[in-house]
Amino acid sequence: MATNRSPEIRKDAVHNRWVIFSPARARRPSDYKSKHDPKTKTQTECPFCAGHEHECAPEIFRFPPESTSDWKIRVIQNLYPALSRQLDPPLDTEFGAGPVTVPGFGFHDVVIDSPAHPVHLTDLSPPQLADVLLTYKKRIDQLRAIDSVKYVQVFKNHGASAGASMSHSHSQIMALPIIPPTASARIDSTKEYFAQTGKCGVCQVRKDDLLIDQSSHFISVVPFAATYPFEIWIIPRDHSSHFHDLDNDKAVDLGGLLKLTLAKMCLQLNEPPYNLMIHSAPLRIDSTQLPFTHWFIQIVPQLTTVGGFELATGCYINPVLPEDAAKVLREVIIPN
Amino acid sequence: MATNRSPEIRKDAVHNRWVIFSPARARRPSDYKSKHDPKTKTQTECPFCAGHEHECAPEIFRFPPESTSDWKIRVIQNLYPALSRQLDPPLDTEFGAGPVTVPGFGFHDVVIDSPAHPVHLTDLSPPQLADVLLTYKKRIDQLRAIDSVKYVQVFKNHGASAGASMSHSHSQIMALPIIPPTASARIDSTKEYFAQTGKCGVCQVRKDDLLIDQSSHFISVVPFAATYPFEIWIIPRDHSSHFHDLDNDKAVDLGGLLKLTLAKMCLQLNEPPYNLMIHSAPLRIDSTQLPFTHWFIQIVPQLTTVGGFELATGCYINPVLPEDAAKVLREVIIPN
Repeated sequence: MATNRSPEIRKDAVHNRWVIFSPARARRPSDYKSKHDPKTKTQTECPFCAGHEHECAPEIFRFPPESTSDWKIRVIQNLYPALSRQLDPPLDTEFGAGPVTVPGFGFHDVVIDSPAHPVHLTDLSPPQLADVLLTYKKRIDQLRAIDSVKYVQVFKNHGASAGASMSHSHSQIMALPIIPPTASARIDSTKEYFAQTGKCGVCQVRKDDLLIDQSSHFISVVPFAATYPFEIWIIPRDHSSHFHDLDNDKAVDLGGLLKLTLAKMCLQLNEPPYNLMIHSAPLRIDSTQLPFTHWFIQIVPQLTTVGGFELATGCYINPVLPEDAAKVLREVIIPN
Repeated sequence: MATNRSPEIRKDAVHNRWVIFSPARARRPSDYKSKHDPKTKTQTECPFCAGHEHECAPEIFRFPPESTSDWKIRVIQNLYPALSRQLDPPLDTEFGAGPVTVPGFGFHDVVIDSPAHPVHLTDLSPPQLADVLLTYKKRIDQLRAIDSVKYVQVFKNHGASAGASMSHSHSQIMALPIIPPTASARIDSTKEYFAQTGKCGVCQVRKDDLLIDQSSHFISVVPFAATYPFEIWIIPRDHSSHFHDLDNDKAVDLGGLLKLTLAKMCLQLNEPPYNLMIHSAPLRIDSTQLPFTHWFIQIVPQLTTVGGFELATGCYINPVLPEDAAKVLREVIIPN
């Protein structure tokens, strides 16, 4: 499929990260399928299902706000939070070199995407997906009002091998007292790119051979130096630093493109386990940083095993060239 | 077991990396076991077994050098190399900001640790393990003579879920035309620590409550901000930048501590899949960098699933506090 099967090493403009593309190790890109069996046990009752609200950790809010048993989305505390809202936040987050310990202050919440167990994101309509996205936004707006929260990470683990401990569709929101390494590295990298070119590195991600689809306000692409096979980014077409600036119209538009993108990935790759992550700018950036920070959604299907090379070097081996992955996904036809 | 079960966030002095310790999510540290079934199929013949040499990619050398069918260790090319020794190396490795592609030049070799299929590293005697370690050293010495090789990564994937595609015990050696991100980040971090304290960050890793065992020349510890539960480092007691400076006596001493460490981990954690990685300094560092570069072996048992939070943030959630993991491993008794 690719004309040149020699390995390449690519560095992306967004993360300053190297990836080894090794297509000679690959099956044909169109042959990539998850080995995972997508048929899950018919589980009709779990703590996230409607009617089991009392089995969950405390609710933060629900949508629609005044709903009772007919809620559509619930935001609850995580029963096993990785960070604790009861601890004192660190007084300072500027540290010297050397080992440091700070209290594990933070928030770890769960968004239950639907009251019904078998419903996945791809089963929701674009306006329903917009409601999920706007629920993330509402919770981020609450969390960013807290001074000691420096960064909010929204993510979704779909499938056990992608880290999901519950099969009922849900997302997680973690509010951190530090800016995490990936966000710092991304901002350093796009800042340098902006200094050299006057352009935002994420705005430049769009290239015709990497494009999968586009909507009025968003594009879906395979990034130039994708870390993982069939990794997908969904990016606002207009420059925007923070996910929480999403408005209602754009949320419905994004819901449509997200539904299409997930449906294509699930059809092409045999409903793989996947991770979906929203990469937004740190909450308290100043206006000089706005031109080179640009939020996007990253979707990573879990198709390969990470081994010692990746753990040791931080350098990933991707057997599928991004332009090949983009072509395969662009050409998927979703049956009506 | 731990007196304080609140989550903590720790930054280590070696990688400048944050880890969230979330012991409230954990089972008791002593209860950690791999779910993996260590009993592998009785496979008596594979391309790595003695007598099947013709099914492998070309041999680079064997040990002992003059052996025929009675070889102990073979170094061969990888049949599916991620990098190609046939490509032209990149002319320069200083790049500006922005997307970059360089040819995938490099070497990707395999070390067959033993001619017999069922033999694992823990079955070898300390002198036999020393021979494996000295084989790594010999191949590194060959590769570092090539100007365009900037870094050599030695690693071992044990078990399918740790990335091993062959069950016959083997290690891999990759020679890279770039210094990988983890090595760069480590050197930046230990340089800053050295500038502030006049000390090597890796020399400072030793703390009594983190120590597992020690030999004449090495210590085994759980690092202060271990990224993964039961992660182990084996570190030379005397400051040393490069693994390839290992001499014969120290190799036998290291073989003994490595055997003990792997045996303890396998017994305590139910023979988990694991990754073993040698972290050495870049090949062509200058003498000013020697005081803050210190090689070590990292061993990571695969006990947890990485999810969207870790992928998104580069920040890991470790459910086992390092001092708890070290205590459990320190107290394991290996039956005679």
